[in-house]
Amino acid sequence: MLAVEWEHQACLKDTQVNINSEFEIIKKYLSGIGASYLDSSSVELAGGDDCAVLAPKSKLLISTDTSVVGVHFLKTMPPQAIAYRAVSTALSDIAAMGGAPTAFNLSLSMPSLDSTWMKAFRNGLVKISKEHKIPLVGGDLVKGPLQISVTVFGRPGQNILLRSGAMPGDILCLSDALGKAYVGLRTYKSSPLINAKTRPYLFPKAQVEYAQAISLHASSAIDISDGILQDLSHLIGQSSVGCELDIAKIPVADSHFHKQCLEFGDDYQLLFTVPPNKLDLLERKIKSLGKQCHTIGVMKGARLKILNSPFKNIKNWDHFR
Amino acid sequence: MLAVEWEHQACLKDTQVNINSEFEIIKKYLSGIGASYLDSSSVELAGGDDCAVLAPKSKLLISTDTSVVGVHFLKTMPPQAIAYRAVSTALSDIAAMGGAPTAFNLSLSMPSLDSTWMKAFRNGLVKISKEHKIPLVGGDLVKGPLQISVTVFGRPGQNILLRSGAMPGDILCLSDALGKAYVGLRTYKSSPLINAKTRPYLFPKAQVEYAQAISLHASSAIDISDGILQDLSHLIGQSSVGCELDIAKIPVADSHFHKQCLEFGDDYQLLFTVPPNKLDLLERKIKSLGKQCHTIGVMKGARLKILNSPFKNIKNWDHFR
Repeated sequence: MLAVEWEHQACLKDTQVNINSEFEIIKKYLSGIGASYLDSSSVELAGGDDCAVLAPKSKLLISTDTSVVGVHFLKTMPPQAIAYRAVSTALSDIAAMGGAPTAFNLSLSMPSLDSTWMKAFRNGLVKISKEHKIPLVGGDLVKGPLQISVTVFGRPGQNILLRSGAMPGDILCLSDALGKAYVGLRTYKSSPLINAKTRPYLFPKAQVEYAQAISLHASSAIDISDGILQDLSHLIGQSSVGCELDIAKIPVADSHFHKQCLEFGDDYQLLFTVPPNKLDLLERKIKSLGKQCHTIGVMKGARLKILNSPFKNIKNWDHFR
Repeated sequence: MLAVEWEHQACLKDTQVNINSEFEIIKKYLSGIGASYLDSSSVELAGGDDCAVLAPKSKLLISTDTSVVGVHFLKTMPPQAIAYRAVSTALSDIAAMGGAPTAFNLSLSMPSLDSTWMKAFRNGLVKISKEHKIPLVGGDLVKGPLQISVTVFGRPGQNILLRSGAMPGDILCLSDALGKAYVGLRTYKSSPLINAKTRPYLFPKAQVEYAQAISLHASSAIDISDGILQDLSHLIGQSSVGCELDIAKIPVADSHFHKQCLEFGDDYQLLFTVPPNKLDLLERKIKSLGKQCHTIGVMKGARLKILNSPFKNIKNWDHFR
């Protein structure tokens, strides 16, 4: 099996030719990440050529997520968090389909090279690569405003969890409290440290294990990136069934910021539906992982009906605002 | 077969919920592009869910290419050219491996919505989607500086053309003259029209058919995006064999700008090597396509040796400068 790491090219000796920095940066900071997982991920060729070559043994899940400085992350955030977050938010889409991540691709746009920054950025990539046992298989490095576009690949489970599978009567569930990302960012802004409070924002976890546990029983799923109402609207729209959502049942990270916790998004928790007769089994499976399942509504009617809300309006995070 | 187009979600009727513009823009301008090619491209699910689902019948080629305003294209260029170029430069990597493109993914970052611009941008995507019969299977839309990141997927041919296959004695070949992109950009800057001179820069062609024709006979290949010396350096480095390059044999688009034509890149022509005993057969194949093959050097020695150059230095286009 041919498993080449990023940019092996040994550099020309001819002095007429300037080795340009794009390739040196790639070689120094972006090569070899997760190389030990190439075989298990069915990657035949990674980096260093025009394309990566995958030999998937099954269907392939693919998703792309782009993070822009000042929009999706703060410029002053630790580079390892910027890298980790950019990959994790993309992996969350693989999780939301009940899949197992197998590899990722990275396009990095940055205004200039700061080697300390790049080293820390690489550390963030290595961290998430190890956690999910996924290799970096290719990508691009360009000069431009700081922006990271990640394409992730995954292997579907026995059942692909779609947004469109919810049926009338299904119970709406949530994997964990909302607002940890909001509280994390708020805390980080006043005191820029990596700690238990800021970690959920800086290093959000894609709920891969959780989603795999529910994938045979849930009827639909989505990850919450844009705020619960926005993402619930996708389940409702694509499943063509309404929902009675009980706001009082949604756990939030900090009741002082109840509304913000609901609106902010970026928690990457799972919102999913389950037929009532499968709820027991599903809850037991989740408990065996040491995780929680919060039932927060019922799929019914033709539209969204919000119950027990102390708020007149709940807005959504719009990534294009 | 489940083949869903981008963002079907029917919109909530509830007035509490604002449908946010990100999803409306996707629905209006980025949905359904190349939808008729979903089946033939083995795409089971495109857009509208967390991931796209591919069911590849063979190995998969993957490459990512990012285009940044002011670095890779001019802000004032026709939006259809910006879109077309961004996809075509990525497809050129599939071509350079001798593969057939099957689908693409698009991440678009833009500062605000201009509907005339978006309509023209969509037209550019539709144009290239039709030319290569490839569907847009997913992606992302974010607010940020204008930037386009495209991930392309392809099916390899019988032989995957690597950068690393050149052997001592192989003949170095070039698919067409260099510098058409340089002349195109220069012309466009003084008179911003779409015509025969500017088209090679505005709408560069990925050499898919050409590469497929040579893929059984060539020993290595790369597409020229960064200037011939830069890209030749990759062939040399990865094949571990030097090259005698005869500058006098490289056809250029305009001899008044000889040096710029060699340095500029962005032509997306193919640079490839072929064993001498296969050159005849390969040349006949290329002729039968109505295309040319220029022999411009020989792979030999341990480094690059430049012959017949009127220039002291030939620089490279560095995408990270």
